[in-house]
Amino acid sequence: MTRRLHVVGIGCGDPAQLTLEAVAALRGASYALVPRKRADDPLVAVRRAVLAAHASDLPLVEVDDPVRDRSARVAGDTAAYEQAVADWHAARAAAYETVLEERDGDVAFLVWGDPAFYDSTLRIVDAVLARGRVVADVRVVPGISSLQLLAAAHRIVLHEVGQAITVTTGRRLREAVAAGADNLLVMLNADLPLDGLDDWTIWWGANLGAPTQRLVAGRVGDVVDELRAARTAVQEAAGWVMDCYLLRRS
Amino acid sequence: MTRRLHVVGIGCGDPAQLTLEAVAALRGASYALVPRKRADDPLVAVRRAVLAAHASDLPLVEVDDPVRDRSARVAGDTAAYEQAVADWHAARAAAYETVLEERDGDVAFLVWGDPAFYDSTLRIVDAVLARGRVVADVRVVPGISSLQLLAAAHRIVLHEVGQAITVTTGRRLREAVAAGADNLLVMLNADLPLDGLDDWTIWWGANLGAPTQRLVAGRVGDVVDELRAARTAVQEAAGWVMDCYLLRRS
Repeated sequence: MTRRLHVVGIGCGDPAQLTLEAVAALRGASYALVPRKRADDPLVAVRRAVLAAHASDLPLVEVDDPVRDRSARVAGDTAAYEQAVADWHAARAAAYETVLEERDGDVAFLVWGDPAFYDSTLRIVDAVLARGRVVADVRVVPGISSLQLLAAAHRIVLHEVGQAITVTTGRRLREAVAAGADNLLVMLNADLPLDGLDDWTIWWGANLGAPTQRLVAGRVGDVVDELRAARTAVQEAAGWVMDCYLLRRS
Repeated sequence: MTRRLHVVGIGCGDPAQLTLEAVAALRGASYALVPRKRADDPLVAVRRAVLAAHASDLPLVEVDDPVRDRSARVAGDTAAYEQAVADWHAARAAAYETVLEERDGDVAFLVWGDPAFYDSTLRIVDAVLARGRVVADVRVVPGISSLQLLAAAHRIVLHEVGQAITVTTGRRLREAVAAGADNLLVMLNADLPLDGLDDWTIWWGANLGAPTQRLVAGRVGDVVDELRAARTAVQEAAGWVMDCYLLRRS
């Protein structure tokens, strides 16, 4: 039987957010694999807690994440940014390949949220298989994404009746607004580029599903200071902060 | 203790797609509530099967869905369309209120996919509470949406690295394309308005997660006939068809 690589969405830290299909995939694997940014990466610790709840015997293999060149992003150079991401994916693929060759069996890749949104695992797994040394079937198990937890925590639908949603990154927010988008879900935020959007409405959440979760909602101009303070407080309390928000033109 | 209304995303028909949190919400409720379009509504049967797998003792109360005026939609009159939707929400709120007043206890509303996307349950529950006769706390439990199953089945990320996604309806597809969107997730399709998009790439799926699931992917011009035939075949095999697709400019 061909070896299987399960790319498993595990939600955002609460073990109750996994689907039954995800739990079964973890229990059926020989080991789990996660990238590690540093020795005490807090997001690895959260994944370890999810495993402890559902598949406590499953070995967790941590792969040191190659260092990513972020200078292009800071400089706003799109081509250089894309090249830096591609180089980083290639380096990560080589690191994963080494583990997969050394250690046989079915593998569960533990993906934060859902593999479909702003996650590189599927691209890296495809790159590993394209290298030709690892042969396996890939199976994707969806997970609850932070944007769904945001909606659930605020008890909202993410759009007005029958209207559209633009899902984008903090980096591309301004270009989406300039192009006329009026209902935006913004992910992957290094900061909060909300200048000039005082009259829009925001529903914001950080570390959604985790014990350190914080929510803020209201008119941007009224809540932006509270929101920045909450973001700093979450970072200090948890040692990490991941936030997203819905932004709607009034 | 205040009565609780759980608005529970149950995925798209596969009982393994529920989260543990959703299963616990079903097991803790006094009864479940679903709208019914007609006596033998196939989507009620699918929900009944999900309940049978996880909470077989939970009574399922079926509420007859008010008839919705679809003439405005056909005529393309946006204001009349929105009024027709509002009237339908109000009628559904009155029907739900009657059940909630007659029958006490915590309630689980079984929502197809995720309550955050193109679903009216949260708006209707808010309308029920605004009427003032039912007092309750509302809690939302996210579920796996068809757009996530689409990505998982095709084993894709829903966007290029760092790019945006426009989530919209089949009804609004053409206006999103005209506004420059080049990566679209299209939900709620009455038909497939793909004329003139021959060179775009499509990843399509129908009845995702159900035994009648069908997938088609490729250049629109190459696969559109196959896709229309598959859609008709799914409708005939299952008695219902719900499809969605990712559409990307090449």
